[in-house]
Amino acid sequence: MLKTALVFIATLVVVGTLFAAELPTAPNGITLYPEYMDWKVIAPSYREDKGHIRIITGNAAAVTAMRAGIKPLPDGSVLAKAAWKAEKNPSFPVATEPGQFVQVEFMVKDAKKYKNTGGWGFARFLGNDLQPYGKDESFVLECFGCHTPVANNDYLFTKIVKTP
Amino acid sequence: MLKTALVFIATLVVVGTLFAAELPTAPNGITLYPEYMDWKVIAPSYREDKGHIRIITGNAAAVTAMRAGIKPLPDGSVLAKAAWKAEKNPSFPVATEPGQFVQVEFMVKDAKKYKNTGGWGFARFLGNDLQPYGKDESFVLECFGCHTPVANNDYLFTKIVKTP
Repeated sequence: MLKTALVFIATLVVVGTLFAAELPTAPNGITLYPEYMDWKVIAPSYREDKGHIRIITGNAAAVTAMRAGIKPLPDGSVLAKAAWKAEKNPSFPVATEPGQFVQVEFMVKDAKKYKNTGGWGFARFLGNDLQPYGKDESFVLECFGCHTPVANNDYLFTKIVKTP
Repeated sequence: MLKTALVFIATLVVVGTLFAAELPTAPNGITLYPEYMDWKVIAPSYREDKGHIRIITGNAAAVTAMRAGIKPLPDGSVLAKAAWKAEKNPSFPVATEPGQFVQVEFMVKDAKKYKNTGGWGFARFLGNDLQPYGKDESFVLECFGCHTPVANNDYLFTKIVKTP
């Protein structure tokens, strides 16, 4: 019985390690959060210039704080922005909907660890093979540069949707 | 102690009843599902003709089935489609994001109860006062008419987004 339990635990550890090892990791050490499509919605977004339609989701820490109007978001908050090619629905062309997956991006809040980039760590994973974006850690300067105009909104472009 | 417990339970019943009584109800008896923003995402959508940006979410029964590719969806599946006015982000005008809340619509699967409308019950609640749409039960013919072209997709325009 004990032996069976130990084998079971050992299997769990091996499987867990393999799973973690397979997750893509950005050059700054941020690993893809595989559960991002199970997080709650912050907002949809449509990028006319890129022809992308997107969803921004957030983990529990982020969504709870955003719904309460807390800003800046607390450490541990993670936002995900997933993008798909925008395509017209073949049965209803006035509706634009997601086609092929393009990328998923993350913003991870840790005021101390990421103090040089507004308290946010950035990561982007491209295409169906979730290729990490950036050759080295300096890629975050591009992310941070783009987000600087919204420094007064905790570096976030997106606000959480309002419902009655 | 028993008296305190009974008062507590009675209070819960009263509060629960009041809360239920306050939920708007469509002419066909479908009541707004207040937790729809806590459901998982099925897809974003952009309606160019109406200037709306939308999110479709689904309850656990719906999302589990859609992720598994099950069609038609099982009884108990509920989809919500929430719409906001599409507005350009003032800090980044190539991004279109949600502004004012417009409406939320529901599709409720019960193959037997709603057998005349493809197994789906429909409801729409308008504006910040969530005014039920439709003067009487016949409003569903309008909903069903519009969804008929996608009868071969279980009357759903939207497919669940794919991620790697």
